[in-house]
Amino acid sequence: MDLLAAVSNQQNSQPQSQISHLALDIGGSLIKLVYFSRINDSCRDNDELRSHNESLGVSNSDTSQPILEGRLHFAKFETSKINDCLEFIRSKKLRLGGFHDCTSPSSDKIFIKATGGGAYKFADLFKEKLGISLDKEDEMDCLVTGANFLLKAVPQEAFTYLDGQKEFVQIDHNDLYPYLLVNIGSGVSMIKVDGDGKFERVSGTNVGGGTFWGLGRLLTKCKNFDELLELSQLGNNRVVDMLVGDIYGGTDYAKIGLSATTIASSFGKAISDNKELEDYKPEDISRSLLRMISNNIGQISYLNALRFGLKRIFFAGFFIRGHAYTLDTISVAVHFWSKGEAKAMFLRHEGFLGALGAFMSYEKQSLHGLMVHKILPRFPISVSSAGDKIYCSLNSDSNENEGIECTVYGM
Amino acid sequence: MDLLAAVSNQQNSQPQSQISHLALDIGGSLIKLVYFSRINDSCRDNDELRSHNESLGVSNSDTSQPILEGRLHFAKFETSKINDCLEFIRSKKLRLGGFHDCTSPSSDKIFIKATGGGAYKFADLFKEKLGISLDKEDEMDCLVTGANFLLKAVPQEAFTYLDGQKEFVQIDHNDLYPYLLVNIGSGVSMIKVDGDGKFERVSGTNVGGGTFWGLGRLLTKCKNFDELLELSQLGNNRVVDMLVGDIYGGTDYAKIGLSATTIASSFGKAISDNKELEDYKPEDISRSLLRMISNNIGQISYLNALRFGLKRIFFAGFFIRGHAYTLDTISVAVHFWSKGEAKAMFLRHEGFLGALGAFMSYEKQSLHGLMVHKILPRFPISVSSAGDKIYCSLNSDSNENEGIECTVYGM
Repeated sequence: MDLLAAVSNQQNSQPQSQISHLALDIGGSLIKLVYFSRINDSCRDNDELRSHNESLGVSNSDTSQPILEGRLHFAKFETSKINDCLEFIRSKKLRLGGFHDCTSPSSDKIFIKATGGGAYKFADLFKEKLGISLDKEDEMDCLVTGANFLLKAVPQEAFTYLDGQKEFVQIDHNDLYPYLLVNIGSGVSMIKVDGDGKFERVSGTNVGGGTFWGLGRLLTKCKNFDELLELSQLGNNRVVDMLVGDIYGGTDYAKIGLSATTIASSFGKAISDNKELEDYKPEDISRSLLRMISNNIGQISYLNALRFGLKRIFFAGFFIRGHAYTLDTISVAVHFWSKGEAKAMFLRHEGFLGALGAFMSYEKQSLHGLMVHKILPRFPISVSSAGDKIYCSLNSDSNENEGIECTVYGM
Repeated sequence: MDLLAAVSNQQNSQPQSQISHLALDIGGSLIKLVYFSRINDSCRDNDELRSHNESLGVSNSDTSQPILEGRLHFAKFETSKINDCLEFIRSKKLRLGGFHDCTSPSSDKIFIKATGGGAYKFADLFKEKLGISLDKEDEMDCLVTGANFLLKAVPQEAFTYLDGQKEFVQIDHNDLYPYLLVNIGSGVSMIKVDGDGKFERVSGTNVGGGTFWGLGRLLTKCKNFDELLELSQLGNNRVVDMLVGDIYGGTDYAKIGLSATTIASSFGKAISDNKELEDYKPEDISRSLLRMISNNIGQISYLNALRFGLKRIFFAGFFIRGHAYTLDTISVAVHFWSKGEAKAMFLRHEGFLGALGAFMSYEKQSLHGLMVHKILPRFPISVSSAGDKIYCSLNSDSNENEGIECTVYGM
């Protein structure tokens, strides 16, 4: 059963919707949701789509089913506030997004696709509170499936960031593999991707988003991750970091290519001062922390890409949040360590790879038959508004309520 | 001018000494001193040594000079307390350890060999307070010279540490190169060493000893590095780190080889709790921090060794301090990331590579002609007592006042 969904650029206001195909990625810090809402009154002209499909080489039988138009929605919650997530699912009647167990037709069990460690940890809670069974999908599998989908199906998904400039990268579908996928969640996974479903987790680091937020919370008393990230924009890391110039009395260590402004030791200035924690500005601490972690991830990623001869490194995960300083530090780190030979690339839907991968796995059930294979080229992706708490932020000044509009060729 | 020094195992009490050849390594956090003291009453039998030298292939002319016996001393001070260091040098009359400018015999300038950024930063201060000019030697040069000396000349210098067991490594002088030298000071330098004076700084990281001490100070209010290190021995990092089992509900993520006890995210548990900094034990924070940094350095080091096909990684620098948990974490990291194919090795005189290298550079001046080329095999190195504040600790329970006894074949 081959089915198609088209992502459109229609900038609609939130329509009446019918929810289907909820998928979850429950990580250590965040729960990510992806679901599809059908727009009841937006059926498209069958002849128009059939004609388009023929041009894509899709057989007529694929379009013999009713057509759904709708939207992919993205949402997230803190894992520690899982009850808010459960309430959200209940209030949106998102449980309709699951499927019934077709091997046991008499069963009224509802399954929802879920990945991430929390799919195991919170399985009983979902059962108890919502009567939903979580159908677990492997985390790395989902990340790779999600990344491959985004890279192949969504135009203007991948971008570089250098000198404050974002530049979209044209992905050549025939020259995508192999690449290194670096997913920065609470921890960091580095995955060598060789094709659809062909991958290996080659490395990772435990210095990730959880480290930034955990250390940041202890050091600054910020109440949430975004507040900490905002703070970093106002800070000056040189107040807490020990620079090469601090050690060398203001001069470079030119012989080995270290300028006076290179950070020799993150937080190294907190040694020599007689200052206490209260004497430092939270914004300076936040900036130093963000730079330390982003730079470290960039370095380890590059070393792994080098090890396997991978030219492309895609960075994703909710740590990044399209934040300019994070994008910049990772990009500069990859540029610095590769001596300009490698470029960091980022994904607009960075935080939802796992959830998208879980979402895609509904295809395997052959039940509701939703599958997003291709973009109809005449409908490039764009931002569209969705319900509150539903968003996929591209960067700090983007609309927080970003979805992907789709047309689905259903059963 | 080939000169020899022999390191003896004589466990003497502190003798009356005549100081010579002071060398300094002034880093971002610590000033390291190495100097030689001649023991006036301990002249050895010339015939005995001549006979021994002949067996080593050293020509008679090399032993035609008076013989000095003495000791290499090691000392350190915090860079922020540089005045204590200046006072120490003054009180010990260590300024006699320098040399006069032989290109200008009428000059009464005294030069002392110095390396590290502080040799630039504090040059004026030494001139002003002690009337000493610092003769600057390149930092990486000195680290490599110091490491090569220790590895070649000092028996039982290098050791591995696994499962709480220290094991000395027999160094084959003909199969020493190439190796990766990882010097962990405030920041970290990674140097590929191909021979005497043949090396390249291939990488490094700004997450080093300064980060441990800087962050540790802010988080725990410890008053010095050693106190913070001591604390870590009593701590439990699982209280602050997010483990794989915390995300997966107590189970492993076996498919990719991550056990439930693997750290997924350092400090990641500080996210989900509603605890403040005061609610965490300083010892737990210290342990998590130490593990995060040691593991990160181990990983980046291994990736660089792999990149250049280097089988041996030697870790040095004052961050380690022979501390069991640090040794263990670095060893485990190298073992884990290399899948058991690489072993971390450590150096007993870990903190003094740069200072030793600066010390060795006196040879170039051809003035006092001190040079430590070889160990006389019948005199294996051992711990000996020296003056207060003078030490090179091997591990946390070793004598802090460790020197190396030497016999010097002088001019």
